[in-house]
Amino acid sequence: MNIGIDVMGGDYAPNAIVLGAIQAYKELPDDVKLTLIGDKEKVLEILKAENFEPSNFNLVHTTEVISMNDHPAKAFSHKKNSSITVGFHMLSKGLIDGFTSAGNTGAMLVGAMFTVKSVPGVIRPGIAGFFPKTNSKTTIILDVGLNPDCKPDVLYQYGILGANYAKHVFQIKKPKVGLLNIGSEKEKGNLLTKASHEAMSGSTDFEFIGNVEGNDLYNTEADVVVCDGFVGNVILKQAEAVYKLIKKRNIADEYFERFNFENIGGTPILGINSNVTIGHGVSNAKAIKNMILQTQQVIEAKLPERFKKIFQ
Amino acid sequence: MNIGIDVMGGDYAPNAIVLGAIQAYKELPDDVKLTLIGDKEKVLEILKAENFEPSNFNLVHTTEVISMNDHPAKAFSHKKNSSITVGFHMLSKGLIDGFTSAGNTGAMLVGAMFTVKSVPGVIRPGIAGFFPKTNSKTTIILDVGLNPDCKPDVLYQYGILGANYAKHVFQIKKPKVGLLNIGSEKEKGNLLTKASHEAMSGSTDFEFIGNVEGNDLYNTEADVVVCDGFVGNVILKQAEAVYKLIKKRNIADEYFERFNFENIGGTPILGINSNVTIGHGVSNAKAIKNMILQTQQVIEAKLPERFKKIFQ
Repeated sequence: MNIGIDVMGGDYAPNAIVLGAIQAYKELPDDVKLTLIGDKEKVLEILKAENFEPSNFNLVHTTEVISMNDHPAKAFSHKKNSSITVGFHMLSKGLIDGFTSAGNTGAMLVGAMFTVKSVPGVIRPGIAGFFPKTNSKTTIILDVGLNPDCKPDVLYQYGILGANYAKHVFQIKKPKVGLLNIGSEKEKGNLLTKASHEAMSGSTDFEFIGNVEGNDLYNTEADVVVCDGFVGNVILKQAEAVYKLIKKRNIADEYFERFNFENIGGTPILGINSNVTIGHGVSNAKAIKNMILQTQQVIEAKLPERFKKIFQ
Repeated sequence: MNIGIDVMGGDYAPNAIVLGAIQAYKELPDDVKLTLIGDKEKVLEILKAENFEPSNFNLVHTTEVISMNDHPAKAFSHKKNSSITVGFHMLSKGLIDGFTSAGNTGAMLVGAMFTVKSVPGVIRPGIAGFFPKTNSKTTIILDVGLNPDCKPDVLYQYGILGANYAKHVFQIKKPKVGLLNIGSEKEKGNLLTKASHEAMSGSTDFEFIGNVEGNDLYNTEADVVVCDGFVGNVILKQAEAVYKLIKKRNIADEYFERFNFENIGGTPILGINSNVTIGHGVSNAKAIKNMILQTQQVIEAKLPERFKKIFQ
């Protein structure tokens, strides 16, 4: 397995990325190769300072950087020698098995759609977020921002995408899928969720357990909660805000510590023909390490191949 | 001023409601009369046990109760002698100046729309929720569940409704209005928020400060944040879940204590021809007291008259 890492993406790049890659290298099995894509000179400098043998990594030199403020589609097309653009071209050629970056999220999404593309039959890929549950498990929320306007058949497919993530990455045998809604009864909701509830009821593609409300998000029975990317993005950021408040108020609590994105890793894009994860812009070395470890798990789960069969 | 109180609504009715009314009576000025609507026998029993003089209240006897499980519209029409139905008829006749209940929310909304009705020109009334801010102020969120599918002109009107609530209830001179969205730039969002942003930009009806994201909810500059009732309901319930977690984890924190709905009071319906507030079903006496005190503030703000002028 070969994981491509964008060394130039993120607020603390390249330093935090290279340090995170070193940490990941130490934890990963020998057959996992890490390919660092970015300014080779700078990478070598950091490795030297860390007294780390450069030949442990594959190094791919790039000369351009897509910054956080760049227009995603324009930058992806114009900055042909940027770490993100080069990473996606390596991914689509099969030179790496997965690609991960804490850089410009929009450019990562554009890159995925322009190069590896959606699995045929998947109407809209989605990106997954993770909510820690009080029972030490984790809820997968899908979509958290890729598709702010969704149709019921898209939410239905998110049930399939999420259930397969739960099954093959989280090793949950029979994942339960819930629908984020504003009441427990099936006739509650907006136009989207009412129609989605009908579509999901009695699904044989996944076990549908009905509506999940905002107050259930941290203790729901559902392993996967589907929603449109607008509400998913808002609730994920609200959870982030709660964690910030917890830290600001100097509250030390084991459960709330699990809200820390550093422990979570990245956000996988589900429903595309390859393995892509996106990290938080403010990622430090620990967050990058977890993002890389998560990317390994995602690659091992062989989701694109599974989705190709399911949606064919 | 005369405030009507549904004594039969809520999980701990009538006991908690009567006790809350006694507490409110002690805090309110003499010219505020409280009218308790419900089973007179039971009310008198509780007042006797509390050694409280019944003539301090107006008592209106009703024989029926709309339960939490009743179908809102059917129950409101059929149970003509229920406390909610009687309360709304008193309100529409001007026998009371405001009506408050911790009972069946759906029946309260139906009652408001069937009897006192929307202010002419208001497309859709909304219900407001409250988020405590770290700077000790409070953000008004509108709508939190009445209209799960909104058009941009409805969100625009929520800006007006919310800004007037902030101005006349919270005494904020120049309230700032934000739009809940999934990015800070104006071109971000779903179809609804993109169009709403355009409509709200440059508004002379209120000061529009742009997008507010999920991670800003607890520290936004905005006094009012508008959103459709679906996402508003989800984020309000998520905040509720956070408070429950805080209590469950035995965390004592002054700021998070402000998440406790008992301290907040009720949810006002904005944009109707009278003053109606709705309490939480699990309200205890303290919550009921605050709901009644808040109803007094809402009545004093004379919002329906203001809205009639604004929307005429």
